[in-house]
Amino acid sequence: MNQHFKRTILAALAITALSLAAQAQQAPKPEQIIKWRQSVFQVIGWNSGRIKSNVEGTYNKEEVVKAANSIAAIANGGLGPLFAAGTETGKGWHETSVKPALFAADSKVGEYATAFAKEATELAHLAATSDQARVKEQFGKLGRTCKACHDDYKSKD
Amino acid sequence: MNQHFKRTILAALAITALSLAAQAQQAPKPEQIIKWRQSVFQVIGWNSGRIKSNVEGTYNKEEVVKAANSIAAIANGGLGPLFAAGTETGKGWHETSVKPALFAADSKVGEYATAFAKEATELAHLAATSDQARVKEQFGKLGRTCKACHDDYKSKD
Repeated sequence: MNQHFKRTILAALAITALSLAAQAQQAPKPEQIIKWRQSVFQVIGWNSGRIKSNVEGTYNKEEVVKAANSIAAIANGGLGPLFAAGTETGKGWHETSVKPALFAADSKVGEYATAFAKEATELAHLAATSDQARVKEQFGKLGRTCKACHDDYKSKD
Repeated sequence: MNQHFKRTILAALAITALSLAAQAQQAPKPEQIIKWRQSVFQVIGWNSGRIKSNVEGTYNKEEVVKAANSIAAIANGGLGPLFAAGTETGKGWHETSVKPALFAADSKVGEYATAFAKEATELAHLAATSDQARVKEQFGKLGRTCKACHDDYKSKD
């Protein structure tokens, strides 16, 4: 092996090591990912509560539009990486409520997420264009997509 | 005072009491409000990180659009009630990082929130219509609205 070839190999190895180190540095820890995940559902819950009190009481269209837009953007925001390998168990703000079945090969979480995003998009559309009764109906539909997933994959605590 | 009048007064008082009780039941506790507030900033932070790694590395437009839309919807989502009276101090997921000055009469938090929403909206627009360099520039502009508010109103911990 000549000197030049050795140097090239060493340089390539060094670059690979640096690149792996940079990746390791960038990859968020499971605890942080679970915190983000729990935070996302808190923000969805906050906005759902705002819509609920509006459709069941005095209706403020502007308020409902804001809340529905937030839910729709989050639902379409690509939540998959928040359920990354390594986050099956563990603590974010609190112990994860996700059941192991969500991570299994036959998990229907992808279908549930698609249904959630679809109904959230429709709710945001109706919030801007329709009336309290129609929004209330669609809010119920959205809630059923939440419940379907929670029934299968969220532990009761 | 005749019997009928007494009954009317008592009925009115009872309704007022019930209404106040219902309001008290519906009003979220400061701890819950602080949890929502902290969760909102976690979700903003998560999405900012996604945009940062895209504008500084390999650019995935779809990913940036999703993250920018989430930040824009939240920034325009009416965050004021998350800084309600009674949440100046206290613990959500952790002790609040908000400085008392945010709640003072001369607080500039409203101006900061408006600037944040404006730049977030522009970022979402550019993410959908423009290129990496332009998005990176606007992301920097958005970051400066975050920093301005944090410098004044977020304690370092």
